[in-house]
Amino acid sequence: MAARARGTARRIVIWSRRPETRLALQKQPWCDATADTPEEAVRHATLVVLAAPVEKIIELARQIAPALPAGAIVTDVGSVKGELTRACHAAMPATAFFVGSHPMAGSQKTGWENASADLFDKRVCFVTPLADTAATHAKATETVARFWRDLGSEVSTVTPDEHDEIVAHISHLPQAIATSLCSFLAQKNPAWRNFSGNGLRDTTRIAASDATMWIEIFQQNRDEVLRALSRFQDELQGLHAAIANRDWPEVRTRLDRGKTYRDAFRP
Amino acid sequence: MAARARGTARRIVIWSRRPETRLALQKQPWCDATADTPEEAVRHATLVVLAAPVEKIIELARQIAPALPAGAIVTDVGSVKGELTRACHAAMPATAFFVGSHPMAGSQKTGWENASADLFDKRVCFVTPLADTAATHAKATETVARFWRDLGSEVSTVTPDEHDEIVAHISHLPQAIATSLCSFLAQKNPAWRNFSGNGLRDTTRIAASDATMWIEIFQQNRDEVLRALSRFQDELQGLHAAIANRDWPEVRTRLDRGKTYRDAFRP
Repeated sequence: MAARARGTARRIVIWSRRPETRLALQKQPWCDATADTPEEAVRHATLVVLAAPVEKIIELARQIAPALPAGAIVTDVGSVKGELTRACHAAMPATAFFVGSHPMAGSQKTGWENASADLFDKRVCFVTPLADTAATHAKATETVARFWRDLGSEVSTVTPDEHDEIVAHISHLPQAIATSLCSFLAQKNPAWRNFSGNGLRDTTRIAASDATMWIEIFQQNRDEVLRALSRFQDELQGLHAAIANRDWPEVRTRLDRGKTYRDAFRP
Repeated sequence: MAARARGTARRIVIWSRRPETRLALQKQPWCDATADTPEEAVRHATLVVLAAPVEKIIELARQIAPALPAGAIVTDVGSVKGELTRACHAAMPATAFFVGSHPMAGSQKTGWENASADLFDKRVCFVTPLADTAATHAKATETVARFWRDLGSEVSTVTPDEHDEIVAHISHLPQAIATSLCSFLAQKNPAWRNFSGNGLRDTTRIAASDATMWIEIFQQNRDEVLRALSRFQDELQGLHAAIANRDWPEVRTRLDRGKTYRDAFRP
């Protein structure tokens, strides 16, 4: 939808797992054609975007590999990049290129019905070429980066492993926290949610996200998530200890450090 | 401002600590007069609203007590109610009534410049009469509840101690979490905030709140905050253990419980 709205694609061919989704997409003005198989969808493609759960992305890369035309570039939108990038790169034929992406856009809502043409506008998008393919994949990396920039994204190029450490901290840890806060309050007294102000509402919004998607992310990025969680648990225990010890200067240091960090977010 | 906009007050007299604020408020259309002292401000009042940090509210209640006309009702907007309510009740003369309030409204912004007449609209407001004054303060409690309802709030009447347990969980714990997440990320790599999507943005918004206000809240509600923090730390450790043990059914249980809780929030 975004690619059509911004004129970045000549022809948009979609394959979707469920036949009823393919049928519905045929009627969408931004979709030129639907294909009955992934192979058929990529047959004449210059750029392929694999948008599926992380496990499925690797399967799809293997499935389309024999059907890719020479020079085709394949990217994806998976939330974890280390293993996925290595597996997808290994699956490519010699004449095609895999360069992973992760647009930091979306919401707790899923499905094409919730699509919007400005979803990527002003959002960060990671592009994650493997360090050891930097030379051979330079042109493909630039093409993928330009694709996301054309959709309005701000592109950051990092290695797949750097990406996984970053998102463990700024995305997966906040999800673990929001989920745990809601899971805790659900067991304590769910009726209290009716008393909540905007603070609890905002702090917990992402707890409404799709559970299956998050299990896959926690599975795929398990080591980095556990590392970030442990360090955050230390931080929280530090605040607990400071309050327990009535060490108010230490509590202030933490409140101030948090406020300074948050105040520097872009509006 | 809200009381004027909704016609709930005949005459609005304001005292504010800083003379320059009093000067500025004199020019506000919703303010009938300003007073140079708290005593002067309450001299002819039927309803007094103490809007100040928690410690100052108790001081102010003691200061205005001798000046209160017979039948005057005093309330406040403090975020913690147990000790405060007992202290303010004890400070009242025999002919005046203290019934605490806590409107769950506001933002990380402070000061009259950030005032808005619809701040209380559709927000929860706790009214917290002491259990042992329920009979003598029934009429005063109803007056205070009606005041907040007239400003658009949804009033819940609970005891001061129930209130403190509830807000420890739905307000003070989220603050401790948001502050700790920001404090942690500030030390890890502050530049990563530029990669953040709306998830981190929402989860951390309240970390920008005023540090001094929060130290006072943590001081005043220390026991309940520590209890809630400990139980939340157990919950987080439970998720950590489940991910570490690859116990994905347990991870799903927690994600599902959190999602079910969050999905039931009012829109």
